[in-house]
Amino acid sequence: MDSKLLREYADFAVKVGVNVQPGQTLIIHAPVDSAAFARMCAAAGYEAGAARVQVRYKDEQLSRLDMEKAEESVLCDNKPWLLRSYLDYAEAPGGVCVLHVVTENPELYKGLDAGKVNRVALARQTALRPWQAYTMSNRVQWCIVAVPSPAWAGKVFPGMTQAEAVEALWQRIFTACRVQPGRSVTEAGREHVAAMAARRDTLNALGLVRVRMTTPEGTDLMVGLADDAVWAGASSTTPAGADFIANIPTEEVFTAPHRDKVDGVVKGTKPFVYNGQLVEDFTVWFEKGKAVRCAARVGEQPLKEMLASDEGAAHIGELALVPASSPINQAGVLFYNTLFDENAACHIAFGEGYPENIRGGVTMEKPALAAKGLNQSDIHEDVMVGSATMTVTGWTADGREVSIFEKGEWVL
Amino acid sequence: MDSKLLREYADFAVKVGVNVQPGQTLIIHAPVDSAAFARMCAAAGYEAGAARVQVRYKDEQLSRLDMEKAEESVLCDNKPWLLRSYLDYAEAPGGVCVLHVVTENPELYKGLDAGKVNRVALARQTALRPWQAYTMSNRVQWCIVAVPSPAWAGKVFPGMTQAEAVEALWQRIFTACRVQPGRSVTEAGREHVAAMAARRDTLNALGLVRVRMTTPEGTDLMVGLADDAVWAGASSTTPAGADFIANIPTEEVFTAPHRDKVDGVVKGTKPFVYNGQLVEDFTVWFEKGKAVRCAARVGEQPLKEMLASDEGAAHIGELALVPASSPINQAGVLFYNTLFDENAACHIAFGEGYPENIRGGVTMEKPALAAKGLNQSDIHEDVMVGSATMTVTGWTADGREVSIFEKGEWVL
Repeated sequence: MDSKLLREYADFAVKVGVNVQPGQTLIIHAPVDSAAFARMCAAAGYEAGAARVQVRYKDEQLSRLDMEKAEESVLCDNKPWLLRSYLDYAEAPGGVCVLHVVTENPELYKGLDAGKVNRVALARQTALRPWQAYTMSNRVQWCIVAVPSPAWAGKVFPGMTQAEAVEALWQRIFTACRVQPGRSVTEAGREHVAAMAARRDTLNALGLVRVRMTTPEGTDLMVGLADDAVWAGASSTTPAGADFIANIPTEEVFTAPHRDKVDGVVKGTKPFVYNGQLVEDFTVWFEKGKAVRCAARVGEQPLKEMLASDEGAAHIGELALVPASSPINQAGVLFYNTLFDENAACHIAFGEGYPENIRGGVTMEKPALAAKGLNQSDIHEDVMVGSATMTVTGWTADGREVSIFEKGEWVL
Repeated sequence: MDSKLLREYADFAVKVGVNVQPGQTLIIHAPVDSAAFARMCAAAGYEAGAARVQVRYKDEQLSRLDMEKAEESVLCDNKPWLLRSYLDYAEAPGGVCVLHVVTENPELYKGLDAGKVNRVALARQTALRPWQAYTMSNRVQWCIVAVPSPAWAGKVFPGMTQAEAVEALWQRIFTACRVQPGRSVTEAGREHVAAMAARRDTLNALGLVRVRMTTPEGTDLMVGLADDAVWAGASSTTPAGADFIANIPTEEVFTAPHRDKVDGVVKGTKPFVYNGQLVEDFTVWFEKGKAVRCAARVGEQPLKEMLASDEGAAHIGELALVPASSPINQAGVLFYNTLFDENAACHIAFGEGYPENIRGGVTMEKPALAAKGLNQSDIHEDVMVGSATMTVTGWTADGREVSIFEKGEWVL
């Protein structure tokens, strides 16, 4: 891998994605096998003026070992220091921001008890809820970027040697993230964000209250939006005024469904990995906002576990529009990684909705957000339902019909 | 590296060194570049019945970056979660034990401000003092083992390629730790511990109150022992009765000097690395227990910083006997790593003394230990003063003289 490009990617993630502000603590989560990239990100953090950079390494192989060997009750027992390891910085002067460098082994927990895997993940999310409130409400800047792992690259490019597959996956990641030789990554990224912001503003000017997604393959979902729903996308902004890009790459413009106003059926168009377990070719039926039935050719058990996680897990918190011409979709590979695949297709997300999708929502308390119809849950899981055959139609409060997507493309 | 031998080394460290007890949490500190070994140790921990294994990766390169880029005040500001990340387990039912997998780059902080480096290290030790009390008093099992890093191996074998140097260092580590093909590492280790325990018991039977170390090269140190001093070595035991080996390898039998009864001069016989900075060819002069003057050909500044760390840092807390025929010394290389070099030569340690070196000390409070003459400090740093020319003589309470070492060897 070209180390100059890698450094640009790290720079972009830290200085534009997270947009580290002088005096902040930057926490970086990174896979243990990507230490070289984590170090580049740390150096970029100090360059951007971080008071302190803390890298917390994560080891997928140990996560698997824990899941196999330790009792569920032990794995669900998250000690108080875990939450404090974030809040000690979030509550301090200067504040905190966070970069998640992720990799994904789609078969990390293959063969293990999906119920245990899900309950352990939920227990961690519950323990970290006060910290998640900071990120979900954009009170701190956060950003997710991906790096290949041999396991992930092998799943995406099964015919190649390990080294070839990793190199090929790097190339696809760079293309998807607009990291190219001879062009400033930061400049390309900023242009892209501006174009997406224009699309978002157009949607907001329409004042839609209802959106319908249909495909000839059987998806037909009517989605009533939450009260005072707004479309977001491109970049987000903290109360202190720092812009950040939560996901790199990002191609989506998204809004908040009303938790009780979703009816119909959706068919998955790409697989997704839930807690290290693959879910593929799935269908979900909705009534009055709730997923009442589901089926999947692969991973039906993790899908059911996911929907049963808590009351809000069977409702959706996000509706996102991505054209089939998205460069990530055009790359022609399935990434088996939601960070990429969600930016290759229209999607919905089960679980928690984003306060920024309600007008004035980022400063509202949970009960006020719930009163607007925003869904609440300890999970937030994107599932891809869009394709080159999708039609998306919207309606305004006064009943006017607006064509949004035809054959998977913007027609606004 | 032979992965079978590596696995035996991991097994020995976890099952005999730490001696993980069923239901305990095992915390493993490991260098990020030694993930494969850390995973072997984690697997051994679960085999031994650990309820949970937590690996905390450390990245030397990031430590250097922090030291270069972050303000001292920021690096010294250890948030409360750090201490809780240990005490949350130590105070829980089941309890905790800890394995430190270490590597040492003797030039990690080369060229940086020794004062800053020392104050940052001290701030961390101070913040962790309640947790250190668990390990220093043997209330939890702990063990330190080493793995090579390219930087360390390069310093030990400067003439070799990186890969050759790492392989050569592994071989020396294995020899020093009695890890050999065709022989059970655990059995060899247990035999060695039994032989050392016999030596320790012989010394305790003598009832020494004073020890003198001399060499023709200029060392002449008279060390009065603490009241009720006892010799320790080989293995230690927790109050709950779990035996453990704090250092692998271990060749030392050691006791507690009286903090105010040390007079004379010592000349260093091997360099040591203090907070990533090398100290070489040093001399320290003592009066009434206190180091009143010091000099060093290399690293005089870190040496002075070390002795000025706190009141107890200029006094010694440990006196340890290691024969020149120690297999580590016979290996004929300088490890530039105290874990090894301290087991190659008689040494003294500046700073904190071990409660286990006072009869009944592990259940005593600090004031009672101080009243016995045991030194107290936030540092504990071994410095090597022994050689093949060293004579060690002891005196009993009734004035009987006992010859302990002649020409660097046991003559008891």
